[in-house]
Amino acid sequence: VTASVNPGGDVAVLVAAAGSGLRLGPGPPKALRLLRGEPLLVHAVRRLLGCPEVGCLVVAAPPGHEEWVRDLVGPGVTVVSGGAHRRASVAAALAAVPERFGIVLVHDAARALTPPAQVAAVAAAVRAGNDAVIPVLPVVDTMTQVGPSGEVLGTLDRSGLRAVQTPQGFRRAVLTAAHAAAHTAAAGPAATDDAGLVERLGVRVYTVPGSELALKITTPLDLAAAELLLGA
Amino acid sequence: VTASVNPGGDVAVLVAAAGSGLRLGPGPPKALRLLRGEPLLVHAVRRLLGCPEVGCLVVAAPPGHEEWVRDLVGPGVTVVSGGAHRRASVAAALAAVPERFGIVLVHDAARALTPPAQVAAVAAAVRAGNDAVIPVLPVVDTMTQVGPSGEVLGTLDRSGLRAVQTPQGFRRAVLTAAHAAAHTAAAGPAATDDAGLVERLGVRVYTVPGSELALKITTPLDLAAAELLLGA
Repeated sequence: VTASVNPGGDVAVLVAAAGSGLRLGPGPPKALRLLRGEPLLVHAVRRLLGCPEVGCLVVAAPPGHEEWVRDLVGPGVTVVSGGAHRRASVAAALAAVPERFGIVLVHDAARALTPPAQVAAVAAAVRAGNDAVIPVLPVVDTMTQVGPSGEVLGTLDRSGLRAVQTPQGFRRAVLTAAHAAAHTAAAGPAATDDAGLVERLGVRVYTVPGSELALKITTPLDLAAAELLLGA
Repeated sequence: VTASVNPGGDVAVLVAAAGSGLRLGPGPPKALRLLRGEPLLVHAVRRLLGCPEVGCLVVAAPPGHEEWVRDLVGPGVTVVSGGAHRRASVAAALAAVPERFGIVLVHDAARALTPPAQVAAVAAAVRAGNDAVIPVLPVVDTMTQVGPSGEVLGTLDRSGLRAVQTPQGFRRAVLTAAHAAAHTAAAGPAATDDAGLVERLGVRVYTVPGSELALKITTPLDLAAAELLLGA
């Protein structure tokens, strides 16, 4: 990527890019899989750098692939070694953000086609005074809850459900506190994202509309769908 | 469709095909939208007729399109007029099932590529003694619950969530009782599928593995993904 961050931007973005991508089949780590000849991470970073508010971009790379990632993203982007799980990767990236950034967004490289407008909307909602902001979409499938042995506990009211995307935006102090609390806490319910960690602090989470383009690329079908979206 | 039901089959399948398909953009009702030159309903019916256990197939057609649907599905399939909402369509189709069928599956025409093996697995689980059976898949996105004014109530533990597909299978008496209860009940929480109605009777619901091929075709992107799946 030849673009760089905007020195005037007030938003730092952390990109979790250390996932394995096992569900895509054998191959390199997920963020380095190709979509139209370019790694997912490159698609993601290019879109993030298309947002003038982004003044700092930190990528948590798959351990062992840091140099490859540095070559891909260019000198305008910070690269750190990712951890064993997503939360550790985010914490490592957060530690690399200069003090002056008060707004931090956390993004997944696997949501490689997330439009810059979605990034801007999340950042704007934090700047407007919300401690935590998530982009969400309505849920199409009926969802049911199952117990530990797979027994059906009951259908959820779909009208009250939303699928959560990224980037998720936070006032920096809130995200830092949430990760510190998660690090020291006894094993609680598995939080799958940063907003989930922040909720445990009792922080109110605000939503903005997500987009179909921000789909999480997890399976070969998702990759094919992403190619279609790129062409559309 | 030139195939017909198998006179020796012990399973009746109801196909809800009366939806509007608004999210696919302007055009005919959803079940009549084309996928590789054939209506979704034809894809769905052909796969259902590929299951030797299917002895009765009833399609709830979009009101006003009954004759078109009859031409499409052929003489081996029963066509009834669908209702104003999905539940009414299923009830109308259920009323057309001959007494001798003790196992009834409810399917969505929008899940046009559902493999015959999934239909067979649901039917087999009902035959094995389960009152209600649903095919499910793990959930990829984090899910959050929102309140009436859109406020975030909290992240759900994704490990306990499943996306529910169709066909959903039932002992006939259970499905009949669930629809009768839903018809007479005061407005309760909106049940989005038949398993949701059955749960209200206190019936235990059993799960079998769903499949990516059984995706619900709702948006133009879904339609494009379905074309890819057809080619694969």
